Amino acid sequence: MTSSPANAAQFEAGLATVAAKVEEMLDRLLPRVEGPEARIAEAMRYAALGGGKRFRPFLVAQSAALFGVASEAALRAAAAAECVHIYSLVHDDLPCMDDDDLRHGLPAVHRQFDEATAVLAGDALLTLAFEILADPETHERARVRIELVRRLAIASGAHGMVGGQIIDLTSEGRELDMGGITRLQQLKTGALISFSCEAGAILGRASPDALHALHAYAHDMGLAYQIADDILDAEGDAAAMGKATGKDAAAGKATFVSILGLDRARAQAGMLAEQAVQHLDLFDERADLLRHAAHFVITRRN
Amino acid sequence: MTSSPANAAQFEAGLATVAAKVEEMLDRLLPRVEGPEARIAEAMRYAALGGGKRFRPFLVAQSAALFGVASEAALRAAAAAECVHIYSLVHDDLPCMDDDDLRHGLPAVHRQFDEATAVLAGDALLTLAFEILADPETHERARVRIELVRRLAIASGAHGMVGGQIIDLTSEGRELDMGGITRLQQLKTGALISFSCEAGAILGRASPDALHALHAYAHDMGLAYQIADDILDAEGDAAAMGKATGKDAAAGKATFVSILGLDRARAQAGMLAEQAVQHLDLFDERADLLRHAAHFVITRRN
Repeated sequence: MTSSPANAAQFEAGLATVAAKVEEMLDRLLPRVEGPEARIAEAMRYAALGGGKRFRPFLVAQSAALFGVASEAALRAAAAAECVHIYSLVHDDLPCMDDDDLRHGLPAVHRQFDEATAVLAGDALLTLAFEILADPETHERARVRIELVRRLAIASGAHGMVGGQIIDLTSEGRELDMGGITRLQQLKTGALISFSCEAGAILGRASPDALHALHAYAHDMGLAYQIADDILDAEGDAAAMGKATGKDAAAGKATFVSILGLDRARAQAGMLAEQAVQHLDLFDERADLLRHAAHFVITRRN
Repeated sequence: MTSSPANAAQFEAGLATVAAKVEEMLDRLLPRVEGPEARIAEAMRYAALGGGKRFRPFLVAQSAALFGVASEAALRAAAAAECVHIYSLVHDDLPCMDDDDLRHGLPAVHRQFDEATAVLAGDALLTLAFEILADPETHERARVRIELVRRLAIASGAHGMVGGQIIDLTSEGRELDMGGITRLQQLKTGALISFSCEAGAILGRASPDALHALHAYAHDMGLAYQIADDILDAEGDAAAMGKATGKDAAAGKATFVSILGLDRARAQAGMLAEQAVQHLDLFDERADLLRHAAHFVITRRN
């Protein structure tokens, strides 16, 4: 399967559809702005509804569609994954972390509000993700809900996203090799992407084979996504990205580009995208948007 | 039931027993210090194993004992509650929040490590709490585990602990009345104390009446606890408390003492403790340590 303008248009339409629906769902699930704790709801809403590709929700929705999962359930799990993604951005942008003032072209939460509010809004978004999954409205079976909670917790914690973030922070100025940076990215961004791809299979009580195929797809696609991110950062179009670029190089951080160079990084991303698509061979045409997604992540401009 | 030296000794022995056991459990459940993400495990362990009364674990263990819950299950739920408590302390101590350099007489996590590590260690401890509860080892029934997750998420989020913290931060210099400060404390500390008291009942699949009694007990005892905290802060013995005191008054924050005065605050705490004990009337002598606890919280010196 190759990339074509028609595929790209189909993929982008699918992404936009899920984005609109998950934003509606987030609006429903986020706390209301009222009472003396209004400020926390306001900051959570600012962070969560201020833009973003909603790529993780797209992955949840598409993987759920493979198994005929009800849209409401898929969108709730998608909202949970997005809450964890957003919380990580809010905390990553803090002055003591990556110190970014811009996110999606708008002031970061700690600039729009203040640092304390940003810390707490991130905390509350992480917590909300688990509250959403634990709610009986997500799935009638407790066994399904608890499996989602368990996997999301593992993907987010010290051996997942937070572990990746600490390696990233402590790797400045140190030499990471290809293995080191691959592991870093698998933890920092790959774990939540894997959760997003597997969530639909869990909601749909899919076979172990199907679950494994989606895991393998997520692994390769997530890595391709991250290599593409490093390429975009190196090429540095801050306006298109809606955030500062070139920061990794300035901070002396190893990236896929600094290790492989631009050409080999591009080739590697392309190879991983092809490989990701092959893992979907056991699925029919309902997996086409996931197939397109693997190509999209390496051709995107932001 | 009145406070006596014998009761106090019994209570303190019970508290120490649970503390030792939950520290053993935390040691088992916390990530190991190895690999490139060792720093996050190190910071989590520093935060979690550096002292503390382990009062929430005590409440989980004692409420679980009322219903004959297996010790392993109770200690896992106790460890989860303690992880949430510790994460909240680590984030509260940050410079952008309460800016405390000391915790349990030792440097706060952001002083011992750095701010970024403290943010991430808090994030990882919060996440670990849900991972612990979701694990099949906590209880064989998914329905029980997911109910614990659901309640812990609600107790910790925007309408629980984080909500209380944001009210606390935004209330500096503003006048809070008795109703306002009561609600603040119910969210900030009361919600997790309630979870801790109810967790045993949920693990033990207790009757709604028993669950309700423990909730009411937690409500009154938690408030008594907080009033006592304000009294200790106002009386200001930093050495005994292991942290800075008198900070609330200096920051112009309303406290139970600033609103009621020391004498009425003491009377109110005593009244609430009595009331808390009365809610336990439907339980036999297995609830005695919980009864003693209600008295302890208002007579403690740290």
